[in-house]
Amino acid sequence: MLKANRVTFAITGMLIALLVVALQANASQKKSGQSREAQAIRAVMAAQVEAWNQGNLEGFMRGYWNSPDLTFYSGGLLTSGWKTTLDRYHTRYQTGGNEMGKLDFSDLQIEMLGPRSAFVRGHWHLKMAKSEPGGLFTLIFRKFPDGWKIIHDHTDTSS
Amino acid sequence: MLKANRVTFAITGMLIALLVVALQANASQKKSGQSREAQAIRAVMAAQVEAWNQGNLEGFMRGYWNSPDLTFYSGGLLTSGWKTTLDRYHTRYQTGGNEMGKLDFSDLQIEMLGPRSAFVRGHWHLKMAKSEPGGLFTLIFRKFPDGWKIIHDHTDTSS
Repeated sequence: MLKANRVTFAITGMLIALLVVALQANASQKKSGQSREAQAIRAVMAAQVEAWNQGNLEGFMRGYWNSPDLTFYSGGLLTSGWKTTLDRYHTRYQTGGNEMGKLDFSDLQIEMLGPRSAFVRGHWHLKMAKSEPGGLFTLIFRKFPDGWKIIHDHTDTSS
Repeated sequence: MLKANRVTFAITGMLIALLVVALQANASQKKSGQSREAQAIRAVMAAQVEAWNQGNLEGFMRGYWNSPDLTFYSGGLLTSGWKTTLDRYHTRYQTGGNEMGKLDFSDLQIEMLGPRSAFVRGHWHLKMAKSEPGGLFTLIFRKFPDGWKIIHDHTDTSS
């Protein structure tokens, strides 16, 4: 029985040691993991700005969840679904002489809400020939197998 | 050595069985836990509506994170901090003959984003003597030791 007890103690000891190591590794990796995810989200938004400024609306829309469940709130109006959101942008910025202008985002605050969720606060600004609209936005991002996508966008225009 | 091996197998077997049971319990409890959290968030918002309709602005503000890091976006304007947000509501709804009206929220969609994070989409509506303003909102909730609180509010008014 002595031998059996020693084996039991050894196994239990190893399991506890493994658990401690795993927890420590988890804690120290969590922070660097979070900033890596924030960088990935920042890259999605930078790609959106680049696509917009090349007049590539489909490219811009790649940052959004391609689903009927995407929601887009703007100026008190609700738009549901990826396709309807694309159509809205198209009508607003590529139809009847409307211009897309030069887009930039500023004051981005990216905050992780879970391992696969984040929200982003920031300002948007459009430089057009005759006007410079801008405002605030709140974005909810979800991490999908093919990367981070906006699942909800609430945007407004400063009056 | 035979006895020692049997003990080792028994312990390993028990550990695996415990792990399987824990994972199964975790999966089945996750769903009911999520709806319990959604109910708790719904209760915070119901308490806010009740406080508002009693003219109790401090009670309404109990649903918000009491921190300088609270952010409130409305009509393209950014308000930072709990106290400044309370002051804004006070100026807007309790000063110079302004009325608070009767508030209600509708079409609430509560979505968990992590064990301590959620976002809520919905409509707000105010019934006043001479007007009925309303619009859309996006709220980010965080679970604190004293319950769920709004850490970010993006509200707009339908034009």
